[in-house]
Amino acid sequence: MDEFDIIRRYFANAQMPEYVSTGPGDDCAVLSIPPGHELCVSTDTLLADVHFPGDATPEVIAHRAFAANLSDLAAMGAAPHSVTLALTFPEANEAWLEAFGNAIAEWSKQIPLVGGNLAKGALSVTLTVMGVVPVGAAILRSGAKAGDDVYVSGTLGGAAGAVKQLGQPNANSAMLKKYQKPQPQLDLGLALRGVASAAIDISDGLIADLGHLIAASEVGATLTLDQVPMLPELSQVFGNEQALSLALGGGDDYELCFTAAVSQRDKIQEIARELDVSLSRLGNIVSDQSGIRDSHGAELHAIGYRHF
Amino acid sequence: MDEFDIIRRYFANAQMPEYVSTGPGDDCAVLSIPPGHELCVSTDTLLADVHFPGDATPEVIAHRAFAANLSDLAAMGAAPHSVTLALTFPEANEAWLEAFGNAIAEWSKQIPLVGGNLAKGALSVTLTVMGVVPVGAAILRSGAKAGDDVYVSGTLGGAAGAVKQLGQPNANSAMLKKYQKPQPQLDLGLALRGVASAAIDISDGLIADLGHLIAASEVGATLTLDQVPMLPELSQVFGNEQALSLALGGGDDYELCFTAAVSQRDKIQEIARELDVSLSRLGNIVSDQSGIRDSHGAELHAIGYRHF
Repeated sequence: MDEFDIIRRYFANAQMPEYVSTGPGDDCAVLSIPPGHELCVSTDTLLADVHFPGDATPEVIAHRAFAANLSDLAAMGAAPHSVTLALTFPEANEAWLEAFGNAIAEWSKQIPLVGGNLAKGALSVTLTVMGVVPVGAAILRSGAKAGDDVYVSGTLGGAAGAVKQLGQPNANSAMLKKYQKPQPQLDLGLALRGVASAAIDISDGLIADLGHLIAASEVGATLTLDQVPMLPELSQVFGNEQALSLALGGGDDYELCFTAAVSQRDKIQEIARELDVSLSRLGNIVSDQSGIRDSHGAELHAIGYRHF
Repeated sequence: MDEFDIIRRYFANAQMPEYVSTGPGDDCAVLSIPPGHELCVSTDTLLADVHFPGDATPEVIAHRAFAANLSDLAAMGAAPHSVTLALTFPEANEAWLEAFGNAIAEWSKQIPLVGGNLAKGALSVTLTVMGVVPVGAAILRSGAKAGDDVYVSGTLGGAAGAVKQLGQPNANSAMLKKYQKPQPQLDLGLALRGVASAAIDISDGLIADLGHLIAASEVGATLTLDQVPMLPELSQVFGNEQALSLALGGGDDYELCFTAAVSQRDKIQEIARELDVSLSRLGNIVSDQSGIRDSHGAELHAIGYRHF
C-alpha cells in the first residue's frame, strides 16, 4: 500500500463545500475566502507520548488534535473554514488507519480537510486550521484594558486531573472526558466578536494563558480564586488545594479566557444563557503590569508544560 | 529555555507585509487575501533520515522544506503569501536553532512566517504554505487535453544522483546542489497562468508525477526519451542508462512538468527566454488512457519513493 492508496482508502473526503474550488489531490487546495473577511490560521502538532498517551485510540488522537486547533479559531472569534493534516505514523496498520480516517471524516463535517501529507515516522498529527472573520473583527490577545472583567468558560482542571489518573483503572470519567474529548468553544468565540476586548484559549493553563494575554495587552490582572470554576469531581478526588492548583495550572481544557468591559456584563450573561455555557467572572484587568495576583496581592505563577 | 523563549530568540520575525494584520504570537495569524483572488494551500512534512540525512545542516533542511512547499505553489501558478512552521526537534541546541532560525528568516523575505508550533521529538519540519491566485486562474493537474505538448523545466535526475552519492567524499557538486538547494519554479508558475493547461511539480519523479497529472486529466502521454533533459554530470558519473533511469524516476528536483496546447509553443519559447529557464518539450498528451509510453509504445512505470 503506497501513500496514495492510503489517502484514497482512508482519507478520501466525500463532500466539499462550494468554497473549496479544488480539494485534496492537486499540488494545492484552492479555496475561496468570503469577501470582506480575513483569514485566521493556526498550526498545532500533537506527538505520541507528549500530547497523548502512545496507546490512545485513533478517535481520541483525532479529537484532541481537532479540539486543540479549532480552539485557536474559537479564541479569535473565527468561523471554521478548512484544515490540512500532516500525519506521520510508523506503519500502515489498517485498523488504526480506518478508525483514524473515520474520525477525521466526522470532524471534516465541521471543517473540511482540503489537503495533507503522509510520512513514515513516530506518530504525530499536525493540523493547520483556517478560519474566517469579518475584516477587523478578530479578537486578539492584545485588547484588554484596565477595568475590564476577566472571564473563563466552563470548568477548569478536568483535563489535568485526568492526566494524573491516566492508566488507572478507576480514573474519574468526568475528568477523562475533559481530557479525551475537549469541546472547542467555537460558538462562544463567534458570540464574543464585538463583545470581548481580548481572548485566548486555555491550552497551557489559566495562569500561563492569561499571562500571555496580559503580556500582549501590557496590563496586569487580579483574580478572586474562589471564583475559578472547577470540575466538581476535582476536589472530591484530589482535595481542595490540589484541585485549585490543577485548575490554575493545568492545560488542555480548551476553554476560553476573555476580557470585556464592565458595560458588557448583561450581554455576557445573555450569551451564557443562549449558548447554555457557564461563564465565570474571575476578576479584573489592572493597569499595573505586575503579573496576575490573587485578591490578597500574592502573585500567581504559571506552571505550564515545558517542552525543553 | 522554554518554547516561548526559543520562539522569541530564534524565530522572531522582524518585518511583516501589510497584509499580515496579526503575525505570530496570537492564537491565530490574521491575514488579508487580495480581493478577486483565491487561496492555494499545501502542506509537506520533511523527516530526518527520510527526507534529509540526519546530519544535514540546518540551512539544507530549511532550504529543502521551503523548496518542496513553494514548489507546490509554483505548480498552481500561485504567488507566495504566507507560511506556518511546525517544528519538532529533540533538544534545544542553541547553535542549531540559531542557524535554522537564520535560514527561516532568509526564506521569510520571500514568504512571511506568520505562525508555528514547537514540540520536542524526532527532528521534523512541517510547513503549510499559502499562496494567492486570481479567481479561476490556478493551474490544475486535471486540465491536460489530447494533443497538448508535455514540457519539463530545467534538468532532471540531479537530486536523485546526489542521493546515491550522499556521504561520499567525491560527491558531484552539481548534483549535490540540486539536492541540497533545489530552486522552486515560482516565476515560471506565474508565467504559465493562462498558458499551461495543466501542471505538477516533480517531487516523486517525472514518470510518477506526470502519471498523477494524466490520471487527473483522464488522458495518456507519449514521451520521446531522448528529449528528457538531464544534468550533464549524470551520464558522466552513472553512464547513460542509469542516468536516464534517475531522470525518469528520481524525485526531489522540484522542476515543473506541464502541458500546453500546440498553439502556445511560441509563447512558451518566449517565457523560457524571458525567465532564462530551459523548457524541454518531451512529448504529447494522447486520449488513450494507457499510461505513459515511449515513442516505441513501451509503457514507462513509476519508481517513486514509497513510504509504506
